[in-house]
Amino acid sequence: MRIAELSERSGVPVHTIKFYRREGLLPAGTLSAANQADYSEDHLRRLNLIRALVGVGGLSLQQVHKVIAALENDDLSTFQLLGVASYALLPDPPLGAEQRRSVVEVQRFLEMRGWRVFPGSPAVFQLADALDAIGTFWGPIDAEALTGYADVIEPLAEHEAGTIDLAASRDELVDRVVVGTVLWEVVLTSLRRMAQEHFSRTRAGL
Amino acid sequence: MRIAELSERSGVPVHTIKFYRREGLLPAGTLSAANQADYSEDHLRRLNLIRALVGVGGLSLQQVHKVIAALENDDLSTFQLLGVASYALLPDPPLGAEQRRSVVEVQRFLEMRGWRVFPGSPAVFQLADALDAIGTFWGPIDAEALTGYADVIEPLAEHEAGTIDLAASRDELVDRVVVGTVLWEVVLTSLRRMAQEHFSRTRAGL
Repeated sequence: MRIAELSERSGVPVHTIKFYRREGLLPAGTLSAANQADYSEDHLRRLNLIRALVGVGGLSLQQVHKVIAALENDDLSTFQLLGVASYALLPDPPLGAEQRRSVVEVQRFLEMRGWRVFPGSPAVFQLADALDAIGTFWGPIDAEALTGYADVIEPLAEHEAGTIDLAASRDELVDRVVVGTVLWEVVLTSLRRMAQEHFSRTRAGL
Repeated sequence: MRIAELSERSGVPVHTIKFYRREGLLPAGTLSAANQADYSEDHLRRLNLIRALVGVGGLSLQQVHKVIAALENDDLSTFQLLGVASYALLPDPPLGAEQRRSVVEVQRFLEMRGWRVFPGSPAVFQLADALDAIGTFWGPIDAEALTGYADVIEPLAEHEAGTIDLAASRDELVDRVVVGTVLWEVVLTSLRRMAQEHFSRTRAGL
């Protein structure tokens, strides 16, 4: 298909498609006889991925680059691919003394739950950062205080991990992880905010 | 206290404090006899708030401005203050034809659950956006598909809304909403990612 059709089907403006091309996020189309670039369904799929990551997930172009580099790295095993893609979805945490305070607590929490998580996972630092920040308002938050949330999240994550088809193609796997991680995360947090509004309203007698 | 102490106690560098001052996010200190600005515990509290919103929550300065404008607007009732602060924590959704597809489905979902949520709530558009994006990968997502997530989130949000002390001061209320909404959201999503990693690892036999 021509770039105009690609734009129409993906909902991404032509100039933005060209920008993604220049940034190396989207492979070149094949040149047709008329010396025009021809795009395939793979290009459409890639554009949908970029659009979901940037538009809904709020990821930076740098993070999108990491996801796509993982996708295009054939040396990675399926599990590594899932890991790299998933890790790329979180910003690199800034390192500081502040942050380290709760990292120990997060590691203790992971041991308590028996969750096997790479100690350098961005989620570990993200959680430690959040606990440190909550601590400045409410005093220190320990591993035990996370139990209620973990009890809710554990069966959900187990179900989600179980729905990944490990025999699928690399493209499908990455789509799956990206959609499963970034987009369902937005679903989860927006549901939480709506439910909070409902119960606050009820409590305020409104 | 002097600006150096404010910086040390908050962990925010002096030049960043000055930047927040210029941006109007932090009120001026009182001038002491020596013609130096003197800062109070209120300034420290405000800095902790800004730091949590920007640093951990990833909010833009524009969003922080909205939260602080709500906090300083004495015409707002407690419930309105909670609402405005909570709404300010989500970016204004871009409007587009794409988006509207799922808005109807979100409204149907809210009716199904009996959640009373303002139809213009940013969370409504955020959810609709996410559903549209998921739809481009997996086909249309209907209200029924959200049941599993909503069942998990509902008791959590009810508990969270129940812990807000409506008789607290405005400053405390806003701190509470910000911490409760933004920071615990980060806790929730990082727990989910860690649990997903654990269960993916287990499934892959690693």
